[in-house]
Amino acid sequence: MTLNLTPIIAALQSCLLPNAGRIALHEPHFAGNEWQYVKECLDTGWVSSVGKFVDRFEQQLADFTCLKHAVATVNGTASLHICLLLAGVRAGDEVLTPAMTFIATSNAIAYCNAVPHFVDSETATLGVAPGPLAEYLADIAELKAGVCYNRHTGRPIRALVVMHTFGHPVDLDPLAELCARYHLVLIEDAAEALGSYYQGRHVGQHGTLSALSFNGNKILTTGGGGAILTDDAQLAKQAKHLTTTAKMPHPWLFEHDQTGYNYRLPNLNAALGCAQLEQLPDFLAAKRAVAARYRAAFSGLSGVEWVSEPPHSRSNYWLNALLLAPEHSQQRDALLEATNQLGIMTRPVWTLQHKLSMYRDCPRMNLTVAESLESRLVNIPSSVVLGQVR
Amino acid sequence: MTLNLTPIIAALQSCLLPNAGRIALHEPHFAGNEWQYVKECLDTGWVSSVGKFVDRFEQQLADFTCLKHAVATVNGTASLHICLLLAGVRAGDEVLTPAMTFIATSNAIAYCNAVPHFVDSETATLGVAPGPLAEYLADIAELKAGVCYNRHTGRPIRALVVMHTFGHPVDLDPLAELCARYHLVLIEDAAEALGSYYQGRHVGQHGTLSALSFNGNKILTTGGGGAILTDDAQLAKQAKHLTTTAKMPHPWLFEHDQTGYNYRLPNLNAALGCAQLEQLPDFLAAKRAVAARYRAAFSGLSGVEWVSEPPHSRSNYWLNALLLAPEHSQQRDALLEATNQLGIMTRPVWTLQHKLSMYRDCPRMNLTVAESLESRLVNIPSSVVLGQVR
Repeated sequence: MTLNLTPIIAALQSCLLPNAGRIALHEPHFAGNEWQYVKECLDTGWVSSVGKFVDRFEQQLADFTCLKHAVATVNGTASLHICLLLAGVRAGDEVLTPAMTFIATSNAIAYCNAVPHFVDSETATLGVAPGPLAEYLADIAELKAGVCYNRHTGRPIRALVVMHTFGHPVDLDPLAELCARYHLVLIEDAAEALGSYYQGRHVGQHGTLSALSFNGNKILTTGGGGAILTDDAQLAKQAKHLTTTAKMPHPWLFEHDQTGYNYRLPNLNAALGCAQLEQLPDFLAAKRAVAARYRAAFSGLSGVEWVSEPPHSRSNYWLNALLLAPEHSQQRDALLEATNQLGIMTRPVWTLQHKLSMYRDCPRMNLTVAESLESRLVNIPSSVVLGQVR
Repeated sequence: MTLNLTPIIAALQSCLLPNAGRIALHEPHFAGNEWQYVKECLDTGWVSSVGKFVDRFEQQLADFTCLKHAVATVNGTASLHICLLLAGVRAGDEVLTPAMTFIATSNAIAYCNAVPHFVDSETATLGVAPGPLAEYLADIAELKAGVCYNRHTGRPIRALVVMHTFGHPVDLDPLAELCARYHLVLIEDAAEALGSYYQGRHVGQHGTLSALSFNGNKILTTGGGGAILTDDAQLAKQAKHLTTTAKMPHPWLFEHDQTGYNYRLPNLNAALGCAQLEQLPDFLAAKRAVAARYRAAFSGLSGVEWVSEPPHSRSNYWLNALLLAPEHSQQRDALLEATNQLGIMTRPVWTLQHKLSMYRDCPRMNLTVAESLESRLVNIPSSVVLGQVR
């Protein structure tokens, strides 16, 4: 039987502002010291690669996430790239990573000339499924002289990148245990998850290295920006060095000791970040209010469920999602069409990575759950402003 | 005989503001619509990857440089990386590039898994020397089926990247001719040369692709930023595609058709660029005034010369330089020490690329001139503000 979309759309509309014009998935919100800090950059001339806001933003990020070190970068993709390099990922290595993720995760692996190896997701977290991954690794992985190898390809498997989808933390404890067992470096792609907690701890604390993003669609924005988080002082130092062209400190000499990157965050953008970070508790409360409204609106409907934060986690609810029941997956596109035509922006999850031409031939496990999720997931508007104005 | 540095330092000081505190090499100058445009971004919420200032900045850049297309990027290094990829540079290729250049040029080649092949510079332009390069290529290069190969390594030589050092244009005509003869793609690293002209034409017009930088030390700044210039509509389209994660246009689907990059310039930074570009004619006039003052101050001194724009060129004089006579090169460090101790920031040219550990084993021609220039060149303060306030 075809699912009637009318009550779903009505439930969605009941959570949005009437007559608000086109409703975006996520709009930035500037209500703090953004003007003041940005103007200070212009007035002092410190807009570029060095400046007090970069240092301050890094310290604020470390404080907020309870990680010892944060290194600001030009965007989330750059952060992931550096995380992978510092994890020791080299040309010809494989890196385990979800098939259901934004392209940046796979691309960052490709920048290292390494090979993404796609793993399945679970419905509870929308992220990497620990149980099936354990079974899969038991089958295909072997440790030789302390290094994990893919039995089938003969390549080293160097790391696992998990991604906290839409802000919902993956089940970090069993995944960290799996990484320890197979000598894999755990990297958390927390691009969407600033302000999300797993078992009471901010995400990023399980991974050896973690990446944040401050793109315009994120819970807070620097225009474009990102950060690398780590508790390891040596890795943090290397992250700063690699993101600043690997220049050796000297009052005037230009010497570089490796092929580095121009990945530093400009001070202008960091100024915006400082002002935004001051408002993060308010943003999180607003996102939670939006989520609560969606939870209530969709609780009585059949054939569709609103995606709740996983057990033992507190999500930042960066981006809300609906899941059609499996038997109604063929209605996904109709729901996307109808809502977008009404001016309510919605979208499906990213095309699964193994379906993209450049990653089609990468190794992968059975991706049944990710494929099911892809066929029936729809993201819905989640801007901070929706939780503030009623 | 040891060169007496006292008159050199006095000449330098006569061109600077007395009691100005520490004098930087180049400081940005914000005297136009910077705050208005940046504020507009904050007020409208358009700070990130899409927005009218990005389009406007690209159009203004194309108009100013008389190139048909400009694609804004996150920085000059990113621009060069994309130029090389679009030039067809692939893993294992060689790319001819000056040994005397900023690290970004070599790094961008390395990001393509290609090999920098270092060539010598000439004193007249401080850039690639056409005559010696022609002789060198006659010796080591051979065309096979329309592709240039290095006889010694067997690798294809795919492109020549020239760099307009400190804003002074290289001798583009003979270099373009050499590229045509050997089927090399000519790429202009014009990171330092916005506002510089060769034979009356803005730099960037000889290369198939060219790269600009708007780092905080450049003639205009976006905090961090860059651009790709080209007259080729197809290359411009590909540049935009590759710098925006290679996402296929669609109202909601996230599909990508190749491994792309997150290299777009945020709208916030582009807003700054639009305001700065409006003032570029004033900045160029100010830089010229600084240069004229240096020319006069150093004209009577022996043992040192101020570096003038090359014949048939009009330089933006981004960064002024002094050249000690060859017999006084051992005085370079004493001059650097003395001036920096006086609060006048000076620096030598970048350490030659073939002396850096990661590029030590790359192929190279005889680099006698570059080595001589490196041993005796000193950059001196060149901020716009020095040309405006007297």
